[in-house]
Parts: sequence; C-alpha cells; structure tokens
Amino acid sequence: MISKKMEKMVANNSAIRAMFEEGNKMAKEFGRENVYDFSLGNPNVAAPAAVKDAIRELLDNEDPVVLHGYTNSNAGYEEVRETVAKSLNKRFDTAFTANNITMTVGAAGGLNVILKALLNPGDEVIVFAPYFVEYRSYVSNFDGVVVEISPNTVDFQPKLDEFETKITANTKAVIVNNPNNPTGVVYSEETIKQMAAIMDKKQKEFGTDIYLISDEPYRELAYDGVEVPYLTKYYDNTIVGYSYSKSLSLPGERIGYLVVPDEVTDSETLIGAVNIANRILGFVNAPTLQQKVVAKCINEKTDISFYDRNRETLYDGLKALGFECTKPQGAFYLFVKSPVADEKQFVAAAKKYHILIVPGSSFACPGYVRIAYCVSHETIVNSLPAFAKLADEYK
Amino acid sequence: MISKKMEKMVANNSAIRAMFEEGNKMAKEFGRENVYDFSLGNPNVAAPAAVKDAIRELLDNEDPVVLHGYTNSNAGYEEVRETVAKSLNKRFDTAFTANNITMTVGAAGGLNVILKALLNPGDEVIVFAPYFVEYRSYVSNFDGVVVEISPNTVDFQPKLDEFETKITANTKAVIVNNPNNPTGVVYSEETIKQMAAIMDKKQKEFGTDIYLISDEPYRELAYDGVEVPYLTKYYDNTIVGYSYSKSLSLPGERIGYLVVPDEVTDSETLIGAVNIANRILGFVNAPTLQQKVVAKCINEKTDISFYDRNRETLYDGLKALGFECTKPQGAFYLFVKSPVADEKQFVAAAKKYHILIVPGSSFACPGYVRIAYCVSHETIVNSLPAFAKLADEYK
Repeated sequence: MISKKMEKMVANNSAIRAMFEEGNKMAKEFGRENVYDFSLGNPNVAAPAAVKDAIRELLDNEDPVVLHGYTNSNAGYEEVRETVAKSLNKRFDTAFTANNITMTVGAAGGLNVILKALLNPGDEVIVFAPYFVEYRSYVSNFDGVVVEISPNTVDFQPKLDEFETKITANTKAVIVNNPNNPTGVVYSEETIKQMAAIMDKKQKEFGTDIYLISDEPYRELAYDGVEVPYLTKYYDNTIVGYSYSKSLSLPGERIGYLVVPDEVTDSETLIGAVNIANRILGFVNAPTLQQKVVAKCINEKTDISFYDRNRETLYDGLKALGFECTKPQGAFYLFVKSPVADEKQFVAAAKKYHILIVPGSSFACPGYVRIAYCVSHETIVNSLPAFAKLADEYK
Repeated sequence: MISKKMEKMVANNSAIRAMFEEGNKMAKEFGRENVYDFSLGNPNVAAPAAVKDAIRELLDNEDPVVLHGYTNSNAGYEEVRETVAKSLNKRFDTAFTANNITMTVGAAGGLNVILKALLNPGDEVIVFAPYFVEYRSYVSNFDGVVVEISPNTVDFQPKLDEFETKITANTKAVIVNNPNNPTGVVYSEETIKQMAAIMDKKQKEFGTDIYLISDEPYRELAYDGVEVPYLTKYYDNTIVGYSYSKSLSLPGERIGYLVVPDEVTDSETLIGAVNIANRILGFVNAPTLQQKVVAKCINEKTDISFYDRNRETLYDGLKALGFECTKPQGAFYLFVKSPVADEKQFVAAAKKYHILIVPGSSFACPGYVRIAYCVSHETIVNSLPAFAKLADEYK
C-alpha cells in the first residue's frame, strides 16, 4: 500500500524502534537509573530562563493575530530575520541582511528546503563518513544520489584526496556537519580552506555550481575555546543550515534558519526558490511564536559547561579503561573504537551491562560506536563501572 | 542553478508576489483602510484567551526539557494524541486511539506526509475543481499526477459522474476539502455516500486501494447549523488531515494532525510510514509547546459569529448589487461569478476600486473569483460602495 521508497525505510526503522523499545523495557525491568542510555541526541539541559521570559513577554505585549498568524513572507518575520542577520554579522564579520535569512522548521526542515530548491533527480550530493544518517533520507526525498567519502579514522577530518576524485559534473552539493555528529570533531580552518580550494577548482573544471551546505546544529557546542570556522567566508557557494535545538534546548519546537548569502550564484533566484520550497513542502513558515522567541534570545547561550563536564569525565574514564577514542571538541558525542571489528557485537555486549550505544554502521563507519553524552552527569559517573566490566571482556 | 521543478514554481510565484506587493503599494498610497484586501485566507479573529492561559500554565508547570524536547515518537506526545482521539470519538462517534493520530506541522505538513507515505511516481491523485491550488505542488513533490474533475458550477458539489469515469487502476488517492476553499460549499452527506460507493466499487473493480484524503482546516467554520460529515464513517480507506490554523486562529504556529483509522487497509504499516515520513521530510515532530496547547484547548472554539456576520453582510450586499454567487455554508470564502468570461479582467477592474480578489483560474475554475471574508467587518461594510461602482461597470 505504501510507496516503494517508504517500504525500505519502514523496514530499517523497525531496527531503531526495536532498540528504543528495548531501552524502555530495560528501564522498566532494572530501573531507569540503572540503565545507561547513550543512544539519543536529545539535549537534557533545560532552555535558558530567558526563553520562558520571552514567551511571557510576547503573550503580554503582542497582538495574537500577528503573534500566531502566517508571516507575510514564507521566509518569516522580517524583524526576526534582521536580528539573526545582524547577530551573525557581529559574530562572524559577515554582511547579511534579512533577505539572506529564511526561518525554517529546525535544521532538518532547512536541509529539506535547500535540497528541494537545488536537486534534480540523479544529482550527486557528497557526504563525509561518518555522517548523520538522515542525510540519506533527505537526499532521497528529491531523488538525489548520495556519494560517500570514506572515513578518515586517524583524526576524523574529511579525506580531501578522495573528495577531490569523487567530485563529478553531476555533483550538485556537499554536506558538512561541523561540529560533527557522530564524532564530535570540529573541521579545522585548514581543512575548510583546502576543501574550498578543491571545490573552486572543480567548479571551474566542470563549469558547474557546487553548493557547500553547512549543517550547524552543534555550532555553539564547542569546547576548549576551539574556533568553528564560518564557511560562507571561505567559499562563495555556501549555504548554512542552523537550528536552535541544541543552542537553546528547543529541539521539539522546530526552529532554525537557512542562510543564502549574496555571494551564492544567482542568489536572488535561489532565495525565491527556498521560500517557495518552504511553503510547498508544507512547512509554510517556521512556527511564529518561536521565531520571535529566538530573536529575543539571540544572545542567550545554553550551559555548555554541563556537556563539557560530561565530556571530560566520560573521555577520561573510557581512556583509563583502555578504550580508543578521539577527544571530541564539539557537539555531545564521543566516537569510540570497538575492540572487535564487528561493532554490533560490541553494542550487544554493552547491553548486558545496561549500556545503550549506537553502532558506527548507522553513520557509515563500522568498527566504531557513538556515545551521546547529553545525559545527566550522574549517568556518566554511574556508567563507568559498567564500562569497566565491558572492558574486562576484551582484555 | 535551481531544480527544474522549482523553476516553474518560481515563475508562477512571481505573479502572486506581484499581487501581494501591489496590495501593499495601494495600502501605502491610499491608506490601509481604503484598500479592500480580500486576497488572503489569513484569519483575523484572535486566538481564544484560553490559548494564552494554556501557554502560561505550561510554562509554569512543565519541565522545559520535556515541554520543548523531541517527542519520544515522531507522531507526537502520547497524551496529546489520546486527547485528540477521545475528542473526535465524542464528537463523531468514532473509535480512535492515540495510535491513529499523528500530530503534524499544520494540515499542509500533514498532506505532504500522507502523500509521501502513499505515492509512487506516476500515481494519480484526483481533485475536484475548484480546489486549493497547493494540492498540485504537494502531489508534484512526490511525482504524482493530478487528475482534475471539472467544476460543477450549479451548486459546486463534486461532479460524481465524471469522477467515476476518471478513476483508473493508477488512482491512489482522492483529495476532498470540506468545507471547501474556494467556494465555501459543504459537501453533503448524500454526496459523500455516493462518492464512497463509487470508490468502493472501483477498488473492487481494479483490486486496488484508493485513499480518500479529507483536508479539513475549515471543519469548525460551518454556519446555519449545517453538518459537515466525518468521512471515516462512510469509507474505510479514509485519512483525515486537520489543522488548528482556523479553529484556534494559530496558522503561523503550524499545528494539526492526521488521522489514519484502523479500518484503512494495512493501517499499522501506513501509520509507521506516516511517522517516518514526518521525520524524514524534516518536520521531525509537530511543535511541542503547541501540541500541548491544543490538547489543553481541545474544547475551545474560535468565534465563528464574527465570520458569519461578514458572510451575511457580504453575500446580501453582493446579491443586492446583482452579483451571482452560491451562499457559502462554511469556511470564510465567497465564490462569485465574474460578469465577464475572463475573470482576470474583472479582477483588474476591481483593483481600480481598491478591491483585491483572486481569479478562479488560480483554483482551476475560470469565470469566477474568490473573496476571502476573514477581514474586519468594517472592511466588508466599507467595501460595498466600491463593489457598487464595480457592478455599475457591467450594467
């Protein structure tokens, strides 16, 4: 009955659902506090108090017909977009205006919108393994073809030599996720400069436009003072997708934006297409109350010291137990080498100690596992003895 | 640069944008109060006070990590879906559970989700002219083919004889919009029974499943005590798409739901596909705060007496001036026969009197115009002398 495209996805989904249900079953059997569920990237830091204040203030002072109404443009409220543009300009020395910003239903909505605007069937979209597996679905929505660059397991920076060989005349876009899910690695400025140079060269070689789509839900989660390069400054055909899911802990509210800079080829047409895609995909406009909330909270930050503490404790703890992993500089994930080649075995073994983690195969990087440390610090601390038992199995 | 599909849409959109900008220009030149803008279906009744109270209460009493967090299921909060199901059961004597309900980003989001779940490229989707033109875009998103049933301009009930001849082995879905945009007509129970009988017959004839998708953003806007039939009771393969945009005046907040009843063929698989489609199209889940708001406001109603008064004044006023129109029983649109065959001429003539209306061609029904009366009563009253001058041109 359902579409052929969906049939495969329903089958795949059953596995994830099974894992989720198993976690719930374990929590019921052993108590939630005795299950170390590191499987989901759902922030557990509360939204800053300013969010609550902003909502109250909006309810008190705004005309509800405007506050909850359709926005004049599908791009969102003009003043919200201007606030976002000005904030970016101040932080990154860019020169955006409201016209360059489209408010979206989170970053997932934004990515679908830009891919809808850009892709013809058969267009190639390059991704660097390991990558967020939903990219495959987003590209498939518009009949694009995902081209994978194999993982560089030395430091998880993208493999640029392989990248260069895989760009073709059909390459329409390249997606980067920085800081990265699932590795927590931040692509360095050096990496980005080299990537931009390759793409510039290939654009000239093929006489095409190749769009660099920067998916940045984790931008604000960077530790040790590391700089996350702002990609529009390195490459003209860059589009940025942002979300407030992690930076303001509002994942369920579905609020983010796309940036299409003037430097993008034929930017006015693309901006027009983005706004229409926002409408016809059924988003229509980003949720209006939350648009105004994020504008009011534009200088607010989530408490990253919370994640940072988890990061240090978990990383140090696992290293001490002999696990191999790259210390993450951003996001809230640790990517750990499985002691056995088939990491699904390792994931299964971890379950015996009530540890729930995600196999790297889910991110096109077998032999590794992802641990999402956006959990309570207590969970981290209490999980370490369980990890110790798990480590013993492989000694 | 942009995709071929979008190129055509960008071109079409320019016309709508031009109209919108012309309206703004006229408002600037002549004063907003001297421009009678009947072009948009944007409710101008404020959300009920209960919405504000519900938001305040949620902010005071709910854990923000849950209130603004991803929902466990992409279908939305279990308790919200249960509240919706129970409310429908009470009103329509149905037997839904939370499992039959998926909270969506408005009805537009819901329609995209169900079409994504159902359509293979080339599948036919039947619509009855005049119809909401966005259906074409939604179907095109998934490479479906729109099959139009020509308008019945006698009473704007669907032409069921033509419908029967146009159902083929490739017909996957039929979309009805009841009460109807742009006519304001309510499809009667008799119509629905006949439609269901035809579809049942054709399903047997072709050995296929043909889904009836009922798009119901205007369900609560029905006047004179008219009953709007609840379609799941007449035909098993019915899916309902609902939105709170009009019923609670929350169009910008993007909150609605889909109903997939157990009676639908292989309903569990379809419900699974719907939830995955919700995720991979980038909606992920309907905005969480608003999910809880609509659950709290499940028994609230928008003030339809406001629209009703506009309806009476406008209908009586235009009839007295000699215009031909079917009295609407629902929604907030009046569909008026153009005094000249080319209604775009009529639309242009109306502009001279600062009246902005939409040509019926935009709804696949040339020779008519749509007047959206979701404006202030003052605008209606003040527009009548302008309509009188317009009428004089055609005497």
